[in-house]
Amino acid sequence: MNTVDISPLTRKLSTFVALSANELAVLERLYQRRRTFVAGRDLVEQGQSKQAAYILASGWVCSYKIQPDGTRQIVDFQIPGDFLGLRSVLLRTSDHSFEPITEIQAAEVLAKDLLEVFASTPRLATAVLWAASRDEAMVVEHLVGIGRRTSIARMAHFLLELGARLVLVGLGSRTGYACPLTQYHLADALGLSAVHVNRVLRQLRERGLVTFRDGWVTFDDHERLSELAGFDPAYLDQTGPLLR
Amino acid sequence: MNTVDISPLTRKLSTFVALSANELAVLERLYQRRRTFVAGRDLVEQGQSKQAAYILASGWVCSYKIQPDGTRQIVDFQIPGDFLGLRSVLLRTSDHSFEPITEIQAAEVLAKDLLEVFASTPRLATAVLWAASRDEAMVVEHLVGIGRRTSIARMAHFLLELGARLVLVGLGSRTGYACPLTQYHLADALGLSAVHVNRVLRQLRERGLVTFRDGWVTFDDHERLSELAGFDPAYLDQTGPLLR
Repeated sequence: MNTVDISPLTRKLSTFVALSANELAVLERLYQRRRTFVAGRDLVEQGQSKQAAYILASGWVCSYKIQPDGTRQIVDFQIPGDFLGLRSVLLRTSDHSFEPITEIQAAEVLAKDLLEVFASTPRLATAVLWAASRDEAMVVEHLVGIGRRTSIARMAHFLLELGARLVLVGLGSRTGYACPLTQYHLADALGLSAVHVNRVLRQLRERGLVTFRDGWVTFDDHERLSELAGFDPAYLDQTGPLLR
Repeated sequence: MNTVDISPLTRKLSTFVALSANELAVLERLYQRRRTFVAGRDLVEQGQSKQAAYILASGWVCSYKIQPDGTRQIVDFQIPGDFLGLRSVLLRTSDHSFEPITEIQAAEVLAKDLLEVFASTPRLATAVLWAASRDEAMVVEHLVGIGRRTSIARMAHFLLELGARLVLVGLGSRTGYACPLTQYHLADALGLSAVHVNRVLRQLRERGLVTFRDGWVTFDDHERLSELAGFDPAYLDQTGPLLR
């Protein structure tokens, strides 16, 4: 396999497990059935059952839940290398919806394929469990953010987390990253109004910490921003493979 | 194995996977190293690394994160059959703390034991991933609750979810369950003040929906309570084994 062909998922899982040639081949096979999906049309809908999971190859997706009163809570954003609906494959009924924010490419993974992979390559199963654990740790951070952080610390934490995740799959650097999210996405994710989002972003920019403008997040002062957010990236666990 | 010896974890995982005699034996071995821990002293602390995971055999635990300003967000409560710190074993650094709410019995599981189990019994790995997915689905519900639900719907949803979880491991029924939580636990979990918790519980009682008194939760009207909460238990995935 040529290094330019390394998928974002392989890149991500390699952070946790030093993958063998056979494991890499199995992972690449999972990645075969790639399709293009347009922005704005749900891939998976809340309450849907027996759907496949997807591995995101390119583009951005958000996962969300609609409340009975019609309000929307965005649970998380998915970037290349992330699973979509992994939890739902195992839980049978999807507990949330997925909407592509941009045009995306994603590889469909059927539940039976996944279970076969687990049976034949247990180290890959562990790596997938690692990825699921990491996803859960992010949801926990979002819970703490909404429950306990000020709106400015919440926004700062969110932008830093996205940055760290994007670096892992080669789509960002310590200076910043391309970001297709609108103020409405940020509002629905952080439990703020769109007006409040704008105010918080302006404060962060005016304090020389981070600028989000024209689809680009620029870290003006990564260190002070991390301090303000109380951002400790340990929960993202990106420090190199545990399983060799 | 005698049915009276079935551990809550085995009972829970059997909801997802019809376990073979060998898989049951492996699971019981994981369950050997049981110890007693007193209430109020953390089992695992935020930021601690290389700690073991635990399987909770009896008693209640809460997992929480302390924010830099000293406020506490309870992420979830663990009941018998739940893993403590499973995510942290794979993520190397614990992203939160665990505190026993009552005296508990818990079996220590070392990371290497867990990885061996995954390698030797891949169906068990899938079952553990199922349990982790279910835990994540609960954290997502808590996120949505804090982000989008009114305080009364949030409390109703929380009490219903706990009830459904306890039924699964034989510790509750549709009429109610024993519950050692205080108003302070509820407040830290639901993002409310203790005074607010009391007011909400009084409203739920006066409306004839649920009564929480003297360590006992009684569902006075399970159906109307579920309606108020918008509670759909599908995310708990308790409808019978997917893997036979």
